[in-house]
Amino acid sequence: MRFDVLILGSSSATPIYGRHPTAQLININEQLYLVDCGEGTQVQLIKYGIRSNRIKHIFISHLHGDHYLGLIGLLSSMHLIGRKEAVHVYGPPALKEIIDLNFLHSQTVLRYPLYVHATQDQTMEMIFENEHVQVSSFPLDHRIACTGFRFDEKKRLPAIDREKTEALGIPNDYLPLIKRGHDYVAPNGTVYRWEDLTFASPIPRSYAYCSDTVRTASYLPYIQQTDLLYHEATFMHNMLDRALETFHTTALQAGEIAAQVQAKKLLIGHYSARYKDLNPLLEESKTAFEATQLAQEGNWYSV
Amino acid sequence: MRFDVLILGSSSATPIYGRHPTAQLININEQLYLVDCGEGTQVQLIKYGIRSNRIKHIFISHLHGDHYLGLIGLLSSMHLIGRKEAVHVYGPPALKEIIDLNFLHSQTVLRYPLYVHATQDQTMEMIFENEHVQVSSFPLDHRIACTGFRFDEKKRLPAIDREKTEALGIPNDYLPLIKRGHDYVAPNGTVYRWEDLTFASPIPRSYAYCSDTVRTASYLPYIQQTDLLYHEATFMHNMLDRALETFHTTALQAGEIAAQVQAKKLLIGHYSARYKDLNPLLEESKTAFEATQLAQEGNWYSV
Repeated sequence: MRFDVLILGSSSATPIYGRHPTAQLININEQLYLVDCGEGTQVQLIKYGIRSNRIKHIFISHLHGDHYLGLIGLLSSMHLIGRKEAVHVYGPPALKEIIDLNFLHSQTVLRYPLYVHATQDQTMEMIFENEHVQVSSFPLDHRIACTGFRFDEKKRLPAIDREKTEALGIPNDYLPLIKRGHDYVAPNGTVYRWEDLTFASPIPRSYAYCSDTVRTASYLPYIQQTDLLYHEATFMHNMLDRALETFHTTALQAGEIAAQVQAKKLLIGHYSARYKDLNPLLEESKTAFEATQLAQEGNWYSV
Repeated sequence: MRFDVLILGSSSATPIYGRHPTAQLININEQLYLVDCGEGTQVQLIKYGIRSNRIKHIFISHLHGDHYLGLIGLLSSMHLIGRKEAVHVYGPPALKEIIDLNFLHSQTVLRYPLYVHATQDQTMEMIFENEHVQVSSFPLDHRIACTGFRFDEKKRLPAIDREKTEALGIPNDYLPLIKRGHDYVAPNGTVYRWEDLTFASPIPRSYAYCSDTVRTASYLPYIQQTDLLYHEATFMHNMLDRALETFHTTALQAGEIAAQVQAKKLLIGHYSARYKDLNPLLEESKTAFEATQLAQEGNWYSV
């Protein structure tokens, strides 16, 4: 099953040419989820050949402009190109007020149902699930209310070993039961263990997204042992003062956090506009956590 | 004196790759004015090497997203890069409410003074002037309240013909009077006409900006005899029904309007996303008005 992240924006608050405000697209089994939606996200989607109509769920971490100012434009364009299918947006409570005010004054009456779900920043909360994935929001520590998001793949049922079940003449009706862990008893009384009739299902993967936050211990319980951790790394560690003042993280801290929560891989991003060359950020993070990658726009990262 | 228009966005409501929502930059004697500010305008400014801090006045025609959704991000970035100088924004009354709501929830307290001036869409009104230019808003006919803007260069004082005044030994103290139309009387009683002592000042130029509008006679009085007329041309004339329904104009109509108001040159833009090749729009407008040009992003057009 596919579980990949496309970086649409890698810049912090002020964009520079070639680096856009934060947005990520997550493909889980060909279903698309958008995480944050900075200004220009709809153009980035076009650039990378993603039809916006495939997106059903949009998660907004917080209400600093670089994380949501592309949302109204994206929702508008979905409307203008004739979307009928519902869109669900998850974000801080005031997001609905902002969306409503914009559409009130543009006199836009969306032709598709739009559901805006308020997140809270007090505790971890499961905010969405379907057959493939469960999405939870969790509090980060930024200047204003801000949540990260964690995507946990659901454990899949094991696949039937068709060669064996056919050789044993097991009727198809029994297969769903075997998948769910029932042993099969043949007419002659022989018991076949379900584990022997199936292929073990893969271990579920997880992705955690930590947009803007200062480093604290408070959110580490929520991001334990992910396959891929995205963590902001706005500054080099020699600008720690500035990071603390603006409630951001340094590349060294991002690496240390990834090690602390036993992530398998780390993706850093949300780079300050002052860094034209990103390699020093990468190298700094790697001193604490070797499996670090730079979030680069247009690249897919597998979870 | 410079009087040029840079196209930052040429697309109508839904952007396509390489065509952004509406925004234009006007350079009048090295002072920069922004007209409309669609999503991504700040990135377009970076792309074309324009420092946003040089912009002091921003004019917003109406509150459809493709004309203002880049404003909050631009104002934010000006704040983040340390702007101190005031910014004046002119637009429909609800624009202030939208700006205030966004900055309330992002807890942004701008470090520079921001003045938001409400325009009205009932009559033409002079909304700004300085020593070089006078800017007026005027009503257009769109689905929601919408104004165009007209930039009228002020008549400059004539330049002194230094060779003549020096040959005649006219003291410098008299020159400002001569510039303002006073004749010079020499000590021997000879009268020198001010016209003979100066070079005629150039005829003031004017630029009118007609963003979204259906074709009506109502706004033609406001856009008479401009040196450059920008007029939207969202559709080809074979889509007139769609143009009427959405309160837009066709390329043929834009050309006819330019001829009717005796513009010297016409610039068309705000192209529907359906037109990948823009030449048919250009050709259609030219059938009614030869001096038509296509608004192309990154190009400067002299007024």
